[in-house]
Amino acid sequence: MSVQNEVRIVEVGPRDGLQNLSDLVSTADKIDMIQHLAACGFAEIQAGAFVSPQAIPQFQDMSAVMEGVKNIRRATLTALVPNIQGVRDALRCGLKKINFFFSVSRSHNINNVRQTPDASLTALEGILSEIRPDSSLAVRVDIATAFGCPFEGPVAIPTVLDYVEKLAGLGVLEMTLCDTAGLGNPRLVEALGRQCIRLFPEVTFGMHFHDTRGLGLANILRAYEAGIRCFDGAVGGLGGCPYSPGASGNVATEETVFMFEEMGISTGIDLPALLAAALKIREKLSGAIFRSALLDAGLPAPRGALK
Amino acid sequence: MSVQNEVRIVEVGPRDGLQNLSDLVSTADKIDMIQHLAACGFAEIQAGAFVSPQAIPQFQDMSAVMEGVKNIRRATLTALVPNIQGVRDALRCGLKKINFFFSVSRSHNINNVRQTPDASLTALEGILSEIRPDSSLAVRVDIATAFGCPFEGPVAIPTVLDYVEKLAGLGVLEMTLCDTAGLGNPRLVEALGRQCIRLFPEVTFGMHFHDTRGLGLANILRAYEAGIRCFDGAVGGLGGCPYSPGASGNVATEETVFMFEEMGISTGIDLPALLAAALKIREKLSGAIFRSALLDAGLPAPRGALK
Repeated sequence: MSVQNEVRIVEVGPRDGLQNLSDLVSTADKIDMIQHLAACGFAEIQAGAFVSPQAIPQFQDMSAVMEGVKNIRRATLTALVPNIQGVRDALRCGLKKINFFFSVSRSHNINNVRQTPDASLTALEGILSEIRPDSSLAVRVDIATAFGCPFEGPVAIPTVLDYVEKLAGLGVLEMTLCDTAGLGNPRLVEALGRQCIRLFPEVTFGMHFHDTRGLGLANILRAYEAGIRCFDGAVGGLGGCPYSPGASGNVATEETVFMFEEMGISTGIDLPALLAAALKIREKLSGAIFRSALLDAGLPAPRGALK
Repeated sequence: MSVQNEVRIVEVGPRDGLQNLSDLVSTADKIDMIQHLAACGFAEIQAGAFVSPQAIPQFQDMSAVMEGVKNIRRATLTALVPNIQGVRDALRCGLKKINFFFSVSRSHNINNVRQTPDASLTALEGILSEIRPDSSLAVRVDIATAFGCPFEGPVAIPTVLDYVEKLAGLGVLEMTLCDTAGLGNPRLVEALGRQCIRLFPEVTFGMHFHDTRGLGLANILRAYEAGIRCFDGAVGGLGGCPYSPGASGNVATEETVFMFEEMGISTGIDLPALLAAALKIREKLSGAIFRSALLDAGLPAPRGALK
């Protein structure tokens, strides 16, 4: 079996990077952010979330944001949705792909979406039967706390595999294992990644890491070695989950791209353009914490340039 | 051939972490820093450098610092030395181990120590013949810019191997490949590490990474996979090289320890003690930049503690 060497990087900054901010970002700034990112070559950008404005006020202007980015052709724009109402809103806004999400950890899912993991799966089943006739809507499912829960501690691999099996049984073909609280380590990442790929070869698995304790890129590297070829990142290392104590920013997209490109593994992203976009976004989002060594240091000078 | 699973972490914060600061750290604060670190279980701590006070004023009080840490028994204290004068000063202060250093890149070595790499090797030869009768002084040689030069760009693997061979010919049995300017990537790290170990099985190789562009831990992970078992780190991610444009801090020791311990690989370091020490050191060194996600986030809560 041949394994592809290229990786697909999904930019989730406009969603996971903004969700945690107490200040509301203006609709214009969100549109600018997504437009800047779309110009860097991403095949997929998570543009926001269709959630209750009471729960997360940051995304109350999703319709206006999606209207402002409807010119984008190359990148597939996606949004996080927790329920059927979110799916309907996403369809009304013309989205071609949604990310349903739930936590395998009961405490975390109840904190996050006020229901048990199994209730979330029942909701997903309802969503899938409603949208199946409209085959143009792709579905990715984000499996949160797959590497540990901030409330319950370690999550056993068989627990995650059980949920993967249930999702596969519902016909879900794309799943993202999310290290919501930054609790993964390379050994666990490799073990879970290898088992998922071996047991469910029909599913495309991605991974989503937070860099809470600095292990983000090391986890991505081991995941790649295990055969994972799709990774989320947030520009500038923005973000975090408001319901996960200690969950600081996502792994920085530009550092992920840099690592792979330096290793000769193609991402399809224009890295200088991404760094330029990151600087523009950082200028606008003055209330946000950017955590990216590469963004601070810049790319290495071309050979001999500093002589 | 069995490969040991434990890793040896050398704390270099008191040297590489302070060298870059424009403010002089008081002798008392340096002694405190080394004492705090020595209590965490390190087998080796780089306590400073015996260099010209004109070149690096930060280390002008090395004699007083060494006097203040002479009670330390468990950790071997080392110091960076560029020449025979430094070796004599180190011996006078009672050091049992020195780190000689030079860059394989001509431009960088001239910038750093005002001589060519080959002139540095000649100096080392003189040092080794002077100290050989005193067999109690161990010598580690730090090979700077082994993964790239901030002035000249990429450094070819055969260039590094040539210098390793010359050092081995001089009887040097411990060498550290240093990513002085944060230009290494996991693929290069693995390739150089594997070749060094294969060609020079009698030599113990370590690696020293700066986290300039975020790849520090990913590089360490791949180096480990290649068989490297000794890594430098600076508490809190302090440091950088004043002669390397863009060379920000070292990889944070506590993140390195955390990664290995989470993977079940023993470091011998008391991680909670190290984090406590890092917080105390951060309080004292108000002018320094600490860059460590783990230090900011803290260790994961014990299972169930947040329920």
